[in-house]
Amino acid sequence: MDTTRWLDDGELILWKRLQAVAEFLPASVDAQLRADSGLTRFEYYVLAMLSEAPDHTRPMSALALVTNGSLSRLSHAATRLEREGWISRARVPSDRRATLATLTAAGLRKLEASAPGHVEEVRRVLFDRLSVEQVRALNAALAPVIDALVPAGALGESCPGSAGAGECPPNG
Amino acid sequence: MDTTRWLDDGELILWKRLQAVAEFLPASVDAQLRADSGLTRFEYYVLAMLSEAPDHTRPMSALALVTNGSLSRLSHAATRLEREGWISRARVPSDRRATLATLTAAGLRKLEASAPGHVEEVRRVLFDRLSVEQVRALNAALAPVIDALVPAGALGESCPGSAGAGECPPNG
Repeated sequence: MDTTRWLDDGELILWKRLQAVAEFLPASVDAQLRADSGLTRFEYYVLAMLSEAPDHTRPMSALALVTNGSLSRLSHAATRLEREGWISRARVPSDRRATLATLTAAGLRKLEASAPGHVEEVRRVLFDRLSVEQVRALNAALAPVIDALVPAGALGESCPGSAGAGECPPNG
Repeated sequence: MDTTRWLDDGELILWKRLQAVAEFLPASVDAQLRADSGLTRFEYYVLAMLSEAPDHTRPMSALALVTNGSLSRLSHAATRLEREGWISRARVPSDRRATLATLTAAGLRKLEASAPGHVEEVRRVLFDRLSVEQVRALNAALAPVIDALVPAGALGESCPGSAGAGECPPNG
């Protein structure tokens, strides 16, 4: 007796589409950033998430969370970004295990120089193809999926409190 | 003068959510398959795409396309799947450059044994959290994004002709 709740046709199509988007959307954005700015998508995101933080500074553990990265992946990227002079790292005197990452002035200039081309690419592959209504519908539909998948506290400060959609306006 | 078309709040939230889904959705499914079936998500997908093909056979180049993989990534996975006895590969006599991959009977049994747990995980993180209407809305919204991102002919045979949504019923 088969009790498996197999996917219907529409679900199967969506599952394939989401896997394709997961494969190609980050890759497309990564390729643009590497070609035009010499940054990986992850490195760009690290700079962007620091630029949004008070004093352009976050603990490395919090920065890993908001960039969807493991601490080891972040450390690897941070080493390169620090070598380029775009971020600096400093130990917290009161907590020997904690390290703070800070965006430097040069890092902010690098981010500002890279942002327009990046945003244009995100518009080209994504937002130029979606209506305002579709952006709203996608945000609403993905919110509970994010709740199931993403550690609480991720997704940065646009979504305060948690990754949950409840706290986030679906479209602005 | 800044002519960059910056993202508004709703777009920025959606962009972060899609990146988080791209990061965590494949990872979650991959973890379940590795733990319960000893397969990566990509290996599972290779077996599944062969099971859908006539005679359980596809040219490697076509198989790479429908699994969203490069030929080198597919070759790597195929070597392991062949060693386990789950697929076989054979040269095409009429085209020395072409190789056909075929799902074996043991491979089909492996796929059938792995599928229920996999589908349950996909339901847990995705479809148990979406209404029928949201599945339809996501399919419609992602279709033009797929067109921008994904090589024509990908996404397997559920979407005949092209990856375009035009030919695919949005929900069954």
